[in-house]
Amino acid sequence: MAIEARDIVRGDAKEEVPGVRVKETQDQGVVVTEVEIYEEAAEKLMGKPRGHYVTLDVPTFKDRDPDLKRALMAKLTDQLKELLPEDIQGSVLVVGLGNWNATPDALGPRVVERILVTRHLGQVVPDDIKQRMRPVAAVAPGVLGTTGIETLDIIRGIVSEAKPDLVIAIDALAARNLDRLLGSVQIADTGIHPGSGVGNRRQGLTEESLGVPVIAIGVCTVVQSISIAQEAIHQIANQLADDVAFYDILKQMAPTEQRGLIDEVLGSRFSELMVTPKEIDMLIDDMADVLGEALNRALQPRLDASEWA
Amino acid sequence: MAIEARDIVRGDAKEEVPGVRVKETQDQGVVVTEVEIYEEAAEKLMGKPRGHYVTLDVPTFKDRDPDLKRALMAKLTDQLKELLPEDIQGSVLVVGLGNWNATPDALGPRVVERILVTRHLGQVVPDDIKQRMRPVAAVAPGVLGTTGIETLDIIRGIVSEAKPDLVIAIDALAARNLDRLLGSVQIADTGIHPGSGVGNRRQGLTEESLGVPVIAIGVCTVVQSISIAQEAIHQIANQLADDVAFYDILKQMAPTEQRGLIDEVLGSRFSELMVTPKEIDMLIDDMADVLGEALNRALQPRLDASEWA
Amino acid sequence: MAIEARDIVRGDAKEEVPGVRVKETQDQGVVVTEVEIYEEAAEKLMGKPRGHYVTLDVPTFKDRDPDLKRALMAKLTDQLKELLPEDIQGSVLVVGLGNWNATPDALGPRVVERILVTRHLGQVVPDDIKQRMRPVAAVAPGVLGTTGIETLDIIRGIVSEAKPDLVIAIDALAARNLDRLLGSVQIADTGIHPGSGVGNRRQGLTEESLGVPVIAIGVCTVVQSISIAQEAIHQIANQLADDVAFYDILKQMAPTEQRGLIDEVLGSRFSELMVTPKEIDMLIDDMADVLGEALNRALQPRLDASEWA
Amino acid sequence: MAIEARDIVRGDAKEEVPGVRVKETQDQGVVVTEVEIYEEAAEKLMGKPRGHYVTLDVPTFKDRDPDLKRALMAKLTDQLKELLPEDIQGSVLVVGLGNWNATPDALGPRVVERILVTRHLGQVVPDDIKQRMRPVAAVAPGVLGTTGIETLDIIRGIVSEAKPDLVIAIDALAARNLDRLLGSVQIADTGIHPGSGVGNRRQGLTEESLGVPVIAIGVCTVVQSISIAQEAIHQIANQLADDVAFYDILKQMAPTEQRGLIDEVLGSRFSELMVTPKEIDMLIDDMADVLGEALNRALQPRLDASEWA
Repeated sequence: MAIEARDIVRGDAKEEVPGVRVKETQDQGVVVTEVEIYEEAAEKLMGKPRGHYVTLDVPTFKDRDPDLKRALMAKLTDQLKELLPEDIQGSVLVVGLGNWNATPDALGPRVVERILVTRHLGQVVPDDIKQRMRPVAAVAPGVLGTTGIETLDIIRGIVSEAKPDLVIAIDALAARNLDRLLGSVQIADTGIHPGSGVGNRRQGLTEESLGVPVIAIGVCTVVQSISIAQEAIHQIANQLADDVAFYDILKQMAPTEQRGLIDEVLGSRFSELMVTPKEIDMLIDDMADVLGEALNRALQPRLDASEWA
Repeated sequence: MAIEARDIVRGDAKEEVPGVRVKETQDQGVVVTEVEIYEEAAEKLMGKPRGHYVTLDVPTFKDRDPDLKRALMAKLTDQLKELLPEDIQGSVLVVGLGNWNATPDALGPRVVERILVTRHLGQVVPDDIKQRMRPVAAVAPGVLGTTGIETLDIIRGIVSEAKPDLVIAIDALAARNLDRLLGSVQIADTGIHPGSGVGNRRQGLTEESLGVPVIAIGVCTVVQSISIAQEAIHQIANQLADDVAFYDILKQMAPTEQRGLIDEVLGSRFSELMVTPKEIDMLIDDMADVLGEALNRALQPRLDASEWA
Repeated sequence: MAIEARDIVRGDAKEEVPGVRVKETQDQGVVVTEVEIYEEAAEKLMGKPRGHYVTLDVPTFKDRDPDLKRALMAKLTDQLKELLPEDIQGSVLVVGLGNWNATPDALGPRVVERILVTRHLGQVVPDDIKQRMRPVAAVAPGVLGTTGIETLDIIRGIVSEAKPDLVIAIDALAARNLDRLLGSVQIADTGIHPGSGVGNRRQGLTEESLGVPVIAIGVCTVVQSISIAQEAIHQIANQLADDVAFYDILKQMAPTEQRGLIDEVLGSRFSELMVTPKEIDMLIDDMADVLGEALNRALQPRLDASEWA
Repeated sequence: MAIEARDIVRGDAKEEVPGVRVKETQDQGVVVTEVEIYEEAAEKLMGKPRGHYVTLDVPTFKDRDPDLKRALMAKLTDQLKELLPEDIQGSVLVVGLGNWNATPDALGPRVVERILVTRHLGQVVPDDIKQRMRPVAAVAPGVLGTTGIETLDIIRGIVSEAKPDLVIAIDALAARNLDRLLGSVQIADTGIHPGSGVGNRRQGLTEESLGVPVIAIGVCTVVQSISIAQEAIHQIANQLADDVAFYDILKQMAPTEQRGLIDEVLGSRFSELMVTPKEIDMLIDDMADVLGEALNRALQPRLDASEWA
């Protein structure tokens, strides 16, 4: 996530990374951080392409508080509306990445199930409704199982036929920070770049590769186990701090050096593991509810919720 | 089905329809009828494009006799091998039409599940196997659910990206004749044309629309209820024939006139109904076994069955 | 269905079958027929055990009119409330018979998915809600797949452990009459008796076998193909009536004789077929919506719909 | 797992825990450890009931080597055959605990899918086969979803109806030791006791509760995240050992004290997390293949594999 990249790059420094603008607000338990990467140098430093990244953090989402769920949904709707063209004539293709069978990776397909699909209704609905309805299509290619074809080739093929004006891609991400696990939604106007995601998406899903703008929505559904290890060591050392030289050694290391040490010692053993909440299945559904409703509201500003629910 | 069209066109005439060549053989309980439509006039008369149609009939497939299943599989393998290029370097995309949820329409997706998908294995398998392995991909776009995009647009998109040398499309058909219900497989080198199929596929899946040759495999999984009605009337009348004028009236009518009368009287009431065997679920699985194995054998002539089972 | 048995037994007679009381009302497009079988002789004549049968008919349910859907739901709620004990302390087990994979048989499991399950919430919900909440459990044993154990043995086992005060069993039925196909709901306080249902349930699901009262809810989701044949012959003959002796023969036969003739001529050929609407999948979902909501309302009269939706 | 309990209890001691007998053998990459707990005192010390526990460890199962898979399957078959009565007349119920939707918990249901179910075939198969066939039933009650009834009550109900002579229960376990994650199968003749398992099974599944002997097969499909933390700290400290006092502190602690410290510091934060391999979905299928085939072979010693595959 862009926000994590920025935290790592900035480290303990008080100043912002050059070429990066950050704005943080907080309301009703949702922390909204907007990160703007606007210079080429910053791009390299952050390891993320230039663009606008918004992260909505709700660290206690796992407690399943309905009010927080609603608050996150409302903020998300607002953020999406800002990124979407006001004109509802343009058609949108919602793509749920990830695969059906592995729960942490199933977020995308589950959001797709909740999307109000309207693109094929043109001839059927009354004119009155038709004029207020944005044409929306939605696919979850990962549910096709083993096809022998890259998921992203399938998407590219569908985009070339369905010719949407905009693609919104939903993906499950791996976070470094435990607090972001199923408590953090990132929206970026840059699309999805190689190497992100739980599974191996391999190719990018971007305006360059698809020919239309791509908004990416990412939710952390797993944490790398190495992050767990790092946090464990940090906290234990902290606890024993006063009389233990160990902490001094760690303290003298920059976070990236610390990570390097841990990677070296534990990497080969931990790299194939992932950490998820025990209630992952229910939490993925909660999050799919939030994303599905926010997307429907943002995509169909001129329909009333009662018209689709 | 081409064979039904020909039976209707030919009616009680002893002669073949002009521009159509028919060859029928029978072996181990499987009746193989090859219909060649080779003239434009015949095309119109038959309501089917020029091409090669092979129908394999096993009227007692519903009895679930393992020997018959094997015999059908073997004949099917032979017929497919004749249509496939000998060179196994060319890649093939198997497309299972139809949708997951409606049993009679689920044949395509169930066959796709059984296909040995190899297209993505290029880098992984040893050279020895790789040289004997045809690249095969397989998709069942109907399982994507409501997408707002025509299934056939999705296929066209996938074809344009995956660039197969040949497409094999599997579809569930509606038969007129009760004997063909889950006892008849049709292979055609003409692709799939509008109006066929259980659901409404609307567009064609042909070399013209996809840019590569399309082999269509169709299996009758439903019968129109009007066909049931027609057969019922015919047989009852037959039974009462000797002393009943009713039969005389029907007898004086051509089959198409008979059908017209029945359509007129029952059409609006029966047109929304379909007839399936009670054991449809098991029979669809049996047929998917047969098609899946025949396809794997025909597609991978140089692999041993033990290498994929 | 009891109503069909009564129609057959009564035939063209103007009088009611002795030992049977029938009351018919109509409101908002829903025809409600209450059949009371109260004498042993009537039991035999009707081929149905003594008890109270209510049939709600909506012949045009297949047109998917939302108002009719709502009207049927409301009437159903009323009828169920009359059969349920007012005291909400007693627990109820909802059983969805039928199996997942065969669409016409999937009604029961789909209704179960929509039931507000509360039996396990005792410790969790606030006292205020708890006092207004009837303990409801719900199972669909057919989704277990091939177990080697009779579905009804599984239910009996679950009943002996969960000890509900009442069982409500939902089943898909085969109708004789085309008008009842997905347009007719039957509620009976007699449980389910051998031989009913689409699949082969074999054993009864009754107060005798389970030890608690059983309310059966049945919906016709298929029609026997022989019924289609009968209707076809009847209507065609009718059409040709004036000048055709055939009609006279049929007219002189009682309906059961007619059926007998048709059975004899077509039976072996048609008996393994079933007739369903083409849109069976959507219609089963519509009906599951209606039954699910009616059951939730009837079972939880003291909860507000907003508390569970 | 019993083997983990024993390792903890024994600690660094060279002697075996009193009242516990342990035998370890190794063959073809599979380490077989038989733990016999035979005294009441040992029962308390180990926190496990008296009985026979066999653990088959294949630490590299995650590498998906077909030879190792076969070796594990063969050893498992042998161990199961020793526990099963030789007489194949006695019927067996295989119970797959765990739920469908959460991958690490789906092992039980996936094994059940692979079991050769024969209990209902009595009337159907020829006498010759019947005499060589043990009646086997199989259920996976977790796939029923939210029923409001405890899974184990459902099993008890089914057992009371189906009256098997033996129950074999398959469950997913949480391991402490990372090496056991999807590389360890435990067979116990003691049934399943409260507190085991990934989900909360709450009640025991034992001869006392079911009235018939229960063989439990457990596979570690998740590791507690606290175990990851412990291992991380241990290994990092080890690495820094020479010049760091931290290690001395940890070294002076007994393993249970170490664990206590870690629990205290990280417990509330880590307790809701679980650790799984990234390829969990494929690995669960691999393991289900192994268990399914071993069970079929052990349960049907007089059938040939070709008769069911």
